[in-house]
Amino acid sequence: MSGADNGLRPFFEPRGVAIIGARSSPGFGYGIPIRLKHLGWGERVYQVNPRGGELHGMPVYTDISQVPDPVDLAVVIVPGPAVPATLVGVGRRGIRHVIIETAGFAETGAEGRARQNELLAIAREYGLRVIGPNCVGVVNSDNKFTTSEVMAEALTPGRLAVIAQSGVFGHNLLDKYNEQGVYISKTVTLGNRLDVTENEVLDYLHHDAQTDMVSMYLEGAADGRRLVETLRRVTRDKPVLVLKSGRTPVGRAATASHTGSLSGEDRIYESMFAQTGAVRAGSVTDLVDLARVFLQPARPKGPRLGIVTGSGSMGALAADAAFSAGLVLPPLPERVRARVKEGAPGWMNAANPLDVGPSGQFPLAFRALMEDPDIDMVLSVVTTPYAVVQAMPQEYLSADRFLGEVEPIRALAKEKPLAICVLSHRKLVDLIKAAVPDIPVYTTPEPPVKALAALWRWQKQRTQAA
Amino acid sequence: MSGADNGLRPFFEPRGVAIIGARSSPGFGYGIPIRLKHLGWGERVYQVNPRGGELHGMPVYTDISQVPDPVDLAVVIVPGPAVPATLVGVGRRGIRHVIIETAGFAETGAEGRARQNELLAIAREYGLRVIGPNCVGVVNSDNKFTTSEVMAEALTPGRLAVIAQSGVFGHNLLDKYNEQGVYISKTVTLGNRLDVTENEVLDYLHHDAQTDMVSMYLEGAADGRRLVETLRRVTRDKPVLVLKSGRTPVGRAATASHTGSLSGEDRIYESMFAQTGAVRAGSVTDLVDLARVFLQPARPKGPRLGIVTGSGSMGALAADAAFSAGLVLPPLPERVRARVKEGAPGWMNAANPLDVGPSGQFPLAFRALMEDPDIDMVLSVVTTPYAVVQAMPQEYLSADRFLGEVEPIRALAKEKPLAICVLSHRKLVDLIKAAVPDIPVYTTPEPPVKALAALWRWQKQRTQAA
Repeated sequence: MSGADNGLRPFFEPRGVAIIGARSSPGFGYGIPIRLKHLGWGERVYQVNPRGGELHGMPVYTDISQVPDPVDLAVVIVPGPAVPATLVGVGRRGIRHVIIETAGFAETGAEGRARQNELLAIAREYGLRVIGPNCVGVVNSDNKFTTSEVMAEALTPGRLAVIAQSGVFGHNLLDKYNEQGVYISKTVTLGNRLDVTENEVLDYLHHDAQTDMVSMYLEGAADGRRLVETLRRVTRDKPVLVLKSGRTPVGRAATASHTGSLSGEDRIYESMFAQTGAVRAGSVTDLVDLARVFLQPARPKGPRLGIVTGSGSMGALAADAAFSAGLVLPPLPERVRARVKEGAPGWMNAANPLDVGPSGQFPLAFRALMEDPDIDMVLSVVTTPYAVVQAMPQEYLSADRFLGEVEPIRALAKEKPLAICVLSHRKLVDLIKAAVPDIPVYTTPEPPVKALAALWRWQKQRTQAA
Repeated sequence: MSGADNGLRPFFEPRGVAIIGARSSPGFGYGIPIRLKHLGWGERVYQVNPRGGELHGMPVYTDISQVPDPVDLAVVIVPGPAVPATLVGVGRRGIRHVIIETAGFAETGAEGRARQNELLAIAREYGLRVIGPNCVGVVNSDNKFTTSEVMAEALTPGRLAVIAQSGVFGHNLLDKYNEQGVYISKTVTLGNRLDVTENEVLDYLHHDAQTDMVSMYLEGAADGRRLVETLRRVTRDKPVLVLKSGRTPVGRAATASHTGSLSGEDRIYESMFAQTGAVRAGSVTDLVDLARVFLQPARPKGPRLGIVTGSGSMGALAADAAFSAGLVLPPLPERVRARVKEGAPGWMNAANPLDVGPSGQFPLAFRALMEDPDIDMVLSVVTTPYAVVQAMPQEYLSADRFLGEVEPIRALAKEKPLAICVLSHRKLVDLIKAAVPDIPVYTTPEPPVKALAALWRWQKQRTQAA
């Protein structure tokens, strides 16, 4: 199952896709065919609705049996009571991959669970692979294939894959990432996991050439033992971030009525993630903040963090966060010290964190830390007050002015993990983000430090395991 | 010292202010007089520089002794070696309040500490009250008085006061608050605390009619016992948020070389804050996130949180955060249940968190939770996907459409603490922020839950203490 293709490929790269439940009034059945047509899938989309006719300039087939070849994926958006018969039709038509977006199954209680078991029996009978029910399927930015209505930005190719149980959450997360300039390779929303689980998807993404890392939201494991095996295998090559809800009794009760998941005792998950090298996120914000540091190509050679800052307070807060997260702040290496003291005012204290204050030594100090072999990771904290940025003429505003020469820094960051924190006017944050698109930029000091520490822990664990 | 005016008033409301070190080249001595003139202080500003002449259309006095009445505050921006003589001149001129912005004293080590002690001796001799050195003084949005270069937004009147040891941090924090639509009554940056400490400033703000709460960044207490007494007194009436650096050995080393503070063992501070009812922030982000909930007028009557959401996952994550932070998620009150079930689709599970999904019941459910006497606080989580918002015609986009009628909700929120989380397109976030300017709006679910829990803990402690 963990080969280059474990049988899930048609979900992401169908030769043809039937949209069963296409319709002329608002809803998924209306929006998805339009979106696919816009994305160049028009000739590979087959709309199905008993009324027939035409929609969006494309034919509507009255029954799945009428749909011509090639078609290897069915997206089911019909009302709940019609799902079983639809599934039978799909099986008879010889289609083997199905995404059921319709909700109202196991997540609603015992009766719904019985209806879901009926679907499972049909799937078994026809040898179907099913994603869902109660989901919004997949997004593949590489070939611009999507089974849900997403923004254009969601189809910008990126290196991070997203797995979510819930459709709404999958969208929310995709959107949050895009907002931070993080783009996605593939998104999968699993819903009630009648058949396909996070384990198979993780295996698929493990061998997906477009994916460098995975971000996963889980309410409960489909199969705990298998998740351990899978995570252990995948995290050796690609980082997996996990946000797990149901950490507490009230959270567990909530997940049960949402996707019918059994969240289980949190300490079991905690040890599962720690054992396997999966990186646990503590919140939605964490999931975004952590990904940005992991998506850099650089991996730390050790735990030694160098901090350069224009504010002693921010330096102290970053130092606290680093120590708490298990990083080491070594004394400032002698080479760095010698470089920054030359031409520096007497009051400047050359330590680590390296608080350069308004000395003008920031670029020099930043470069020196990036170049020094005794520093494994760097946090660069720009703290120019908003009023100062606001007063600057536009032509004066350039990233080089604040960071020093950007190109050598970008080159060095390919080898040494770097995070930049800009505590300043939005104008300067955006300017620096645009100048260093490959380097994560934050607006407070603690999150990048925690992310760098998580990167080091992950790196250490996989190196020791190897 | 804790009367309506404990002698600090001239720092915030001077009748006249001397800027000693006014100059024609870039720097504080150049920018501050311009800023004060723009703000209508021209006739009350006296620039001092041995060169004399005129700057910005205002006279420059060659010596502080030449400055006419009324003048009751001196801002010192001269180079370090000139500070002692300047202080003597200020004392002789009969000015009793001084802000020393010049750096290079106790924060630089033993020699600097000796120079600072020299200043202290002069201050004692002339009975001076001194803020600083190594600070940027104060901002008072009420009378538009500032001793540093801040953005126009920083002078928008608000109800939160900011105390910071470091000037850069004070500015950064002020800017961060403004960015989130939180405006400030007074800002004080204390620097090395030669004389005036956080204790006296807290007492002053306690009785300041423009201030409802205080947000404080501290590297170490000037006087631990006195801070305990002061916090105990102040927090009974006004919440005090504290971000304390030097939590760890490396953070402590960093603060020592920054403002010369002795941070002390963190557990001592932890128990100090817990005892006194001060609210401890864990990060810069926290300091902003917490303030927004505390600035609402409503105080919780109990720990019972009601959650309404369009996403079961977000509901589960919020429930986990609530339980971890000590809040209670009661079963959905029967009255609320009856109201939301009417006309709702069968799949909708009427629980708490109340996940309404795409039922259209969001406004009704939100209103019912706000009105129910068995719910003490409400978190309302809007999860409309970005693509849906993006596709909506502009005229369709209104806060009422998403939240339900806004005015009754705003009225109810005056009595019951409410936080809104909008996991959606920036357009919708901004629209909702504008529609409910008095209600805190967040973009992820965990921070508002933590803030509501902190509000409840503070409220419980002061009620029990009373």
